Amino acid sequence: MLSFKNDYSEGCANEVLEALIKTNDLKTVGYGEDEYTKQAENLVKSLVADENVDIYFLVGGTQTNLTVISTLKPYEAVISCDTGHINVHETGAIEATGHKVIAVKNNNAKLTPEAIEAVIKSHTDYHMVLPKMVYISNSTEYGTIYTKKELEDLRAICDKYNLYLFMDGARLGSALMSKDNDLTLIDINRLCDVFYIGGTKNGALFGEAVVIRNNELKPYFKYLIKQNGALLAKGRLLGVQFYTLLKDNLYFRLAQNANDCANLIREKLNELGIKEYMPSTTNQIFVKLSNEVASKLHQEVLFEDFLGLDDGVVVRFVTSFATKKDDVVAFTKILEKYL
Amino acid sequence: MLSFKNDYSEGCANEVLEALIKTNDLKTVGYGEDEYTKQAENLVKSLVADENVDIYFLVGGTQTNLTVISTLKPYEAVISCDTGHINVHETGAIEATGHKVIAVKNNNAKLTPEAIEAVIKSHTDYHMVLPKMVYISNSTEYGTIYTKKELEDLRAICDKYNLYLFMDGARLGSALMSKDNDLTLIDINRLCDVFYIGGTKNGALFGEAVVIRNNELKPYFKYLIKQNGALLAKGRLLGVQFYTLLKDNLYFRLAQNANDCANLIREKLNELGIKEYMPSTTNQIFVKLSNEVASKLHQEVLFEDFLGLDDGVVVRFVTSFATKKDDVVAFTKILEKYL
Amino acid sequence: MLSFKNDYSEGCANEVLEALIKTNDLKTVGYGEDEYTKQAENLVKSLVADENVDIYFLVGGTQTNLTVISTLKPYEAVISCDTGHINVHETGAIEATGHKVIAVKNNNAKLTPEAIEAVIKSHTDYHMVLPKMVYISNSTEYGTIYTKKELEDLRAICDKYNLYLFMDGARLGSALMSKDNDLTLIDINRLCDVFYIGGTKNGALFGEAVVIRNNELKPYFKYLIKQNGALLAKGRLLGVQFYTLLKDNLYFRLAQNANDCANLIREKLNELGIKEYMPSTTNQIFVKLSNEVASKLHQEVLFEDFLGLDDGVVVRFVTSFATKKDDVVAFTKILEKYL
Amino acid sequence: MLSFKNDYSEGCANEVLEALIKTNDLKTVGYGEDEYTKQAENLVKSLVADENVDIYFLVGGTQTNLTVISTLKPYEAVISCDTGHINVHETGAIEATGHKVIAVKNNNAKLTPEAIEAVIKSHTDYHMVLPKMVYISNSTEYGTIYTKKELEDLRAICDKYNLYLFMDGARLGSALMSKDNDLTLIDINRLCDVFYIGGTKNGALFGEAVVIRNNELKPYFKYLIKQNGALLAKGRLLGVQFYTLLKDNLYFRLAQNANDCANLIREKLNELGIKEYMPSTTNQIFVKLSNEVASKLHQEVLFEDFLGLDDGVVVRFVTSFATKKDDVVAFTKILEKYL
Repeated sequence: MLSFKNDYSEGCANEVLEALIKTNDLKTVGYGEDEYTKQAENLVKSLVADENVDIYFLVGGTQTNLTVISTLKPYEAVISCDTGHINVHETGAIEATGHKVIAVKNNNAKLTPEAIEAVIKSHTDYHMVLPKMVYISNSTEYGTIYTKKELEDLRAICDKYNLYLFMDGARLGSALMSKDNDLTLIDINRLCDVFYIGGTKNGALFGEAVVIRNNELKPYFKYLIKQNGALLAKGRLLGVQFYTLLKDNLYFRLAQNANDCANLIREKLNELGIKEYMPSTTNQIFVKLSNEVASKLHQEVLFEDFLGLDDGVVVRFVTSFATKKDDVVAFTKILEKYL
Repeated sequence: MLSFKNDYSEGCANEVLEALIKTNDLKTVGYGEDEYTKQAENLVKSLVADENVDIYFLVGGTQTNLTVISTLKPYEAVISCDTGHINVHETGAIEATGHKVIAVKNNNAKLTPEAIEAVIKSHTDYHMVLPKMVYISNSTEYGTIYTKKELEDLRAICDKYNLYLFMDGARLGSALMSKDNDLTLIDINRLCDVFYIGGTKNGALFGEAVVIRNNELKPYFKYLIKQNGALLAKGRLLGVQFYTLLKDNLYFRLAQNANDCANLIREKLNELGIKEYMPSTTNQIFVKLSNEVASKLHQEVLFEDFLGLDDGVVVRFVTSFATKKDDVVAFTKILEKYL
Repeated sequence: MLSFKNDYSEGCANEVLEALIKTNDLKTVGYGEDEYTKQAENLVKSLVADENVDIYFLVGGTQTNLTVISTLKPYEAVISCDTGHINVHETGAIEATGHKVIAVKNNNAKLTPEAIEAVIKSHTDYHMVLPKMVYISNSTEYGTIYTKKELEDLRAICDKYNLYLFMDGARLGSALMSKDNDLTLIDINRLCDVFYIGGTKNGALFGEAVVIRNNELKPYFKYLIKQNGALLAKGRLLGVQFYTLLKDNLYFRLAQNANDCANLIREKLNELGIKEYMPSTTNQIFVKLSNEVASKLHQEVLFEDFLGLDDGVVVRFVTSFATKKDDVVAFTKILEKYL
Repeated sequence: MLSFKNDYSEGCANEVLEALIKTNDLKTVGYGEDEYTKQAENLVKSLVADENVDIYFLVGGTQTNLTVISTLKPYEAVISCDTGHINVHETGAIEATGHKVIAVKNNNAKLTPEAIEAVIKSHTDYHMVLPKMVYISNSTEYGTIYTKKELEDLRAICDKYNLYLFMDGARLGSALMSKDNDLTLIDINRLCDVFYIGGTKNGALFGEAVVIRNNELKPYFKYLIKQNGALLAKGRLLGVQFYTLLKDNLYFRLAQNANDCANLIREKLNELGIKEYMPSTTNQIFVKLSNEVASKLHQEVLFEDFLGLDDGVVVRFVTSFATKKDDVVAFTKILEKYL
């Protein structure tokens, strides 16, 4: 059956697979101290044009989020959209490390400086947590992206209140290849204190590349990785994958494929007069359908019901690095049939 | 200066002080295993008409909240009003024990079955925390109280979804003596899985009496108390105080004094045409003032600015077990002057 | 350079790699709900001859240990050898989940019923943690193994004191294929409450298969996996690997290779009159060398200095599923040269 | 019945009680921001001859220990004697805040620089916790005390390895008044990064005065107090007590009484030819008795069996600020009868 369910349904990109095959029999030291990891680190440093960042490769997104946020002191809290992954979909992983997630109303699944400032102003003394980190995802959980202006404004508010800005880049590839994007990795590194480049959802079997720019967050980060069970014994698997993804822009081409496929679906929806629930230009599309239509579609295509409404359901269609144009065409025909 | 700032400004009721003086030189075993504590436990059991409850005496409210909530499993979460003490004013104490506080919009500072049900329905799988406990405070952080009907409805929804109902009774005395109250300690024990009778804000130097009815929450609770640094070495201090407060209804008379004083202030505000911001019948009064008026009042009376608004400020006047009628009269005259 | 440094230097077994290649382009649902994972679960159930166990596949050992131990209540503690991985080499991961590791003196890197009983007897009230789980590793951190008799004795003491018995099987393959082993997976499942079959160190790229027999430990375990960042998005990678490893006894043949290679080294050491520091029959060999000899060996072979002594150093030689006999022969010649 | 069971059996010193009575009806601001607390802070600053320390008053010892240790980062650990209170008698409170207690063999219940250095040398990389704090108690759990030379040596090793030195002073009064003591509060403040002056076991109803000298440990400490449920609403109760205890050396006179009483018992034991199990000069005495003798003594005096041995039992006799000489005399007569 056709599937537009998510962007982690397939294995990895062919080039990544080949690199894993080629290096499989080699012996390397463990825990990310091997040469492949070193090379991947250098590639990332070069892409962000910053020799001084610290780079670490972890396995998955929730793991990365909780490890990064565990750099906070016990009484420090992280501000997130109510729609943020750490607030909703991580089974309390952040709280399990002891930190409060201060959730504020989203604006197209994004955080605004105004919302952050309101949090700061209402947290005034030792009876309340100390807001210290701002968590954003780009692209967001609803596929929207931050513009350079928006990110600069967030940076400004973080500077004003001495907050760390942390970008969850589980879907950063798709964000960067969006037609509306005006951010580069160099910008993101400059404007964030820490962020990561997601591999799991864009061509790797698994893996997230954490980039730490702020010196306050660097010391002993590897201890946190290990303590949180996030240090892969065969660390070179991460190095090999990220080296392959990043060295010839493969990462970006894969994200482009996901976006192109999503855009084909968008065009068809547009043609059919269906508006996006939360308009985006990345690899996730949200539309509101009647329960009846959704139900019929489910019989021919795999996708997710995202949000139940009184008069219907918001469904999500997701494309990936591995989505085939033919499948998209087939899907658009099914859409035509029911919409 | 007159003070209506809070209900923990004074020491303890005279009777409590006398009991502490009388027993000061006696030698007892520590950690709540003494005779006074035993007697206080028996009094509580008799007041809730339930021999099977487990009773523990702790020092303060935040400490009690975090200890009770630490009975949850790591992935279990507690539902609270956005205005709930555990959500706002405990410096992330609950999260520090590893648990997410799921905050929902309050209705007069109270939780509704509808809000709880909405949380349950949106928490559907292992990517999200498991809502397991419902936290309410009575009287609430805004002085409102739960009726028997409301508490029964919360019990029903908790039964439906297998949730624990936990009542923070830091201000339970004032709630029970409210003219609108129709709940008894027997009702509360029947309808809640665990609750506490607050001493700190009603006649004790310090102390909260936890009543555990649900057998699932009983085992090894004293280990949790000790682990959380909440086990008082000279435990008899708690026993002596609660025995004194509860044996001849002193606890209730003290709460009545706080309510009576608050009601005198209410009457005056009413007379002056000032509406309560969130109408209540307990020892806390919230009114919206212009910044100018608030500022003038501050020069003659101690009280708290509770909530900044665009066009003024919500201030809080609090009475206590120790508030003197004369002071209330003096205060009403000041109110007359400025309102 | 020759390497006998550890058993996670190489990628995975060829058969595993082929299975990953073959399934790479397939679309599956995520988070371990796919068919491959289901098949691997069934294989494990069949190997332990128990339909009622719950099976989960996690990525790494520390992650698995902390997730399993997080089933404990906050005041419950885990008993381990002082040499246990959780006590020494996990950067406080267990304590970070809130639990004390009660470390007792090891007996050939193993726990004895006597040591456990001594812990129980000295933990008598609520001022101390409640010992609730026993952690053992098989093979141990020093390559030794538990006999059936020893495991039965541990079971008996756990039954006597109502303790969970948890076996860390990161190197279970090597233990089971040891010439001195008399345990089967069926025995282990019967005698332990929870254990895992390690893939990372025996033929998989990564992966540990957790087997939960005790019903008390089963509920909501997947919530704990997710909360601890241990739920792999592309869960089928674990299913595919374990299915391949377990379906035709590949897992055991790979472990046999590691043991065979180690035994060749053992024979040579024996021939040379060098005694093992802690005699074992698995894939790890510990010998005490003079600093001079160790230093020379380091110039030709990669291996680890394990323990500094006043008059020398205990070094560790490790073989793996991928160790080649030719390399072993080459190594024995180097040993001959220096020992 | 006579009791030499512990030093928290009685209430508080008369002078403290009188101060509490005198201030009972006053209204003060809460949470330690009152004038009495300010005065007590100033007294402590003056006693340690250091204006720059931060002073906080908490309720109990375990609470204070866990709050101080929660200043560490997640991967940092605290080194303690195996006999240390935090290692044995706090129900895993330190681990519950996420930190490993690295327990090393005690030397007369004390830590040595050699033991600390051994820990440092065996903790070499990110697979292990980072030892960062040294926990000592003075007097120790066995009544022994640190000399100035010993404390200076600990300071030196802490300086060498960048460790915080934390002294648990639950029984500091008795230590300072010991005939063998050569330390002053000024020395202790100079040599420790943080320590506390115990009130609970020396004349207060409850209370421990934390003195933070190291600037790294100062920021936001009050947030940690609140988060750990350790912030007393009526904070002035602590201020009043410590002001009274410290202003005219009452604290030291009370400790002297405890020591004097203990010394009378020591003399008698000496006369009777009974050696102390771990010789001390403070308010705790440990002697080994046959089970038969211990059993007879228990019929006439309350005291604690501390440590079961194969051929008898180590019992503990404790005196306090409130112990009466007559009771000691009566006790020595009973001792004469049985020893």
